[in-house]
Amino acid sequence: MSSLLAFSAGNATDCLPFVAEGHHVGFVRWDVLKTLKDFPNVFTFHSHCVELNQNLKTYEERSWRMAETLEVMRQKYNFPALRGWRNEVCMGLLAPINFPIVAVVKNHKLLCLVFSGLFGIRQYGVDINGYVNDPDLGFCMWLQQRSFTKPTWPGRWDSMAAGGLTSGQGILESVCKEAAEEASIPSHILNASLRPSGSVSFFYEDERGLFPQTEFVYDLELPLDFMPVNADGEVECFQLFPLHEILEKIHSSDFKTTSCPVVVDFLVRHGVITSENQPDLPQLVEMLHSPVHVLFDSISHGKELQVQVVEENSASLSPSPLVVTTCNSTESGNHA
Amino acid sequence: MSSLLAFSAGNATDCLPFVAEGHHVGFVRWDVLKTLKDFPNVFTFHSHCVELNQNLKTYEERSWRMAETLEVMRQKYNFPALRGWRNEVCMGLLAPINFPIVAVVKNHKLLCLVFSGLFGIRQYGVDINGYVNDPDLGFCMWLQQRSFTKPTWPGRWDSMAAGGLTSGQGILESVCKEAAEEASIPSHILNASLRPSGSVSFFYEDERGLFPQTEFVYDLELPLDFMPVNADGEVECFQLFPLHEILEKIHSSDFKTTSCPVVVDFLVRHGVITSENQPDLPQLVEMLHSPVHVLFDSISHGKELQVQVVEENSASLSPSPLVVTTCNSTESGNHA
Repeated sequence: MSSLLAFSAGNATDCLPFVAEGHHVGFVRWDVLKTLKDFPNVFTFHSHCVELNQNLKTYEERSWRMAETLEVMRQKYNFPALRGWRNEVCMGLLAPINFPIVAVVKNHKLLCLVFSGLFGIRQYGVDINGYVNDPDLGFCMWLQQRSFTKPTWPGRWDSMAAGGLTSGQGILESVCKEAAEEASIPSHILNASLRPSGSVSFFYEDERGLFPQTEFVYDLELPLDFMPVNADGEVECFQLFPLHEILEKIHSSDFKTTSCPVVVDFLVRHGVITSENQPDLPQLVEMLHSPVHVLFDSISHGKELQVQVVEENSASLSPSPLVVTTCNSTESGNHA
Repeated sequence: MSSLLAFSAGNATDCLPFVAEGHHVGFVRWDVLKTLKDFPNVFTFHSHCVELNQNLKTYEERSWRMAETLEVMRQKYNFPALRGWRNEVCMGLLAPINFPIVAVVKNHKLLCLVFSGLFGIRQYGVDINGYVNDPDLGFCMWLQQRSFTKPTWPGRWDSMAAGGLTSGQGILESVCKEAAEEASIPSHILNASLRPSGSVSFFYEDERGLFPQTEFVYDLELPLDFMPVNADGEVECFQLFPLHEILEKIHSSDFKTTSCPVVVDFLVRHGVITSENQPDLPQLVEMLHSPVHVLFDSISHGKELQVQVVEENSASLSPSPLVVTTCNSTESGNHA
């Protein structure tokens, strides 16, 4: 697990809370903050946070103004996050969950990632761990290889089915949708075997920005003769892996970095990664549940907040209790 | 779960890292720190930590000197933690695990808790969640009621079997010992059904001091006709509880506060506490895995560290990512 532990490493980089409608909804790095000063009508700058202008009173007003700002930023600045975005509706899922303050709007061709990464918006997703107890191979997990046409993490291996939560969508509803669309899991199997199994939280950083993220995790024991089949064109293939290959896979660069915590959590809960084979088990388990919510809640209660995020390629553990995973791969991103 | 969430609440109280042999092994509150200044030959005071004197070169020297100091402190000061201690050997389990820097010695009648609480020493323990899948009652858990003669948490309800880890004792070895001593679980049942299931970490505070703690958790599905029987006199009785009673139990003052995270973690992993019935699920799960190790590792890498712990009876979440549980009950304590 040393490669996993190494994620929470590094030199400190300061960033500032991003506040909208009185809620602490994200974090802005100093390089982004400098450019936001070019939009004094959109943002208000305080000593301990940057705030979406309080004069933007409605959801629609905030959404369009933010979309406009991002469009100007895209033309004017060279942020890697702004180099390309997808033409899809993606609502910002802000704190508290299901209380959207800003939408990213379809016909402005804005990518959810652009907004969420640059402003370090807290995001939520769902993940299904599909597994079988094979009489010959033992405990095995189904993984998906992501489609090579996906804008984020193309061709990488990933958990069986997963997706981002968007505003107005229930968690269980989203699980069922992803199970059907990504892996054609029939509802009778879901009804019989789906088990909610908690959540993982982490704070990931790459060249696109900051991603404080929480995944609701579900375990699903599948019949031995069932094979997942993709229904939405977003999956290249599925493959059943025995445990030793799963461990190899999640350590390789073939695996979607932000799905790694979900699989590791599964292997810990199921007694595969233990204190016997992983002396750093408690550190590892704590890292899978970084205190993202405490971080976001703190400023909402009027406290001053100083946050440090850490950069790639350093040897020591994070100087702050906030654990940030870092990656500079050009194809990286968040939920597809 | 609101009562659980409320633990991580409050006004900030500063404390300082306690360093021994170059390792960050604990935290000292300012009220304790003041009295340590009376022992300038034992402690060295730096701006960011208090250190066990580097002239105390051997394990024996450090242990006897610390024992002597605690004895003087007991006579001279009125710390609740120093009002009584047990006559038992208890080795300080310091960071890294199984690298003891100080022992608490039997014939000095020092209680492990005195040392660990006053100096906020990181501690480890093991917990076994005993459960059955009853055809009539459904999913049920075995709980133990602690003996009324126990010095810590007498008469409180607790997980089926648990104990503190001491130096030189393996984790699995300790699990087997507690299973046999506390609940007479035969080895063939352990061998067949014991499943390592990760760990929980929390930072608990009471009148005895600070307890940064990690529990290695194990699940054990028991045969329907098996009944745990105590073998070491430390248990009043065992009782099998259906799930709705477990939830009641852990919310009540009858339950050992520091075992609550272990049972909640079990209920989350087994799909009993879910995002459907507990909207704050991610906060709760993050709290069950407070970043104790990051906190301790940070100073070991030469970084400055500012820690805040929180006090009882306040309404907001912790201002720091460090989650501290608080309790002022007079009979409280840590591992028995």
